[in-house]
Amino acid sequence: MSRYRYAINVTPKPGILDPQGRAVEGSLGHLGIDGVSDVRVGRRVELTVEAADAAVATATADRLASELLSNPLIEAYVVEPLGATSSTAAAGVD
Amino acid sequence: MSRYRYAINVTPKPGILDPQGRAVEGSLGHLGIDGVSDVRVGRRVELTVEAADAAVATATADRLASELLSNPLIEAYVVEPLGATSSTAAAGVD
Repeated sequence: MSRYRYAINVTPKPGILDPQGRAVEGSLGHLGIDGVSDVRVGRRVELTVEAADAAVATATADRLASELLSNPLIEAYVVEPLGATSSTAAAGVD
Repeated sequence: MSRYRYAINVTPKPGILDPQGRAVEGSLGHLGIDGVSDVRVGRRVELTVEAADAAVATATADRLASELLSNPLIEAYVVEPLGATSSTAAAGVD
């Protein structure tokens, strides 16, 4: 069994109203920051999956993203592999 | 002026209590998902910066991340460049 770290990035789909993004844009003037636009606020969930191999771990992360961490009507997600964190069956790399 | 897209990933610092992460872990049993641990829930903010060059754009994104989008006491952030989206001074690439 190996341990794999993933980030699941969940963002509002294009065309979906994003009130948090509008709030950020509205705050830019107070900070004196110019030239920032198209702000979209989503979630980033980082997690560790322990599984026999990377394919099984990725499938688990994908299932978690679609069934628990995102609302498929209004949100899109991307599963981003962050690499294996440890392995009890490491390949022999010299 | 060119337009650059960035993602700013904000996550709870190590050791900081993350109630949303605990809630996700508590839901895994209901879904019948095993082997998931160390869940950390943060934010992902995607935005476009219009600036003279990439260095200026990155500095703007970094300032936004530290002054508006994260709480430095309890959160860490990473500015992730997603690439230039358009440019009025594109380099001559054949």
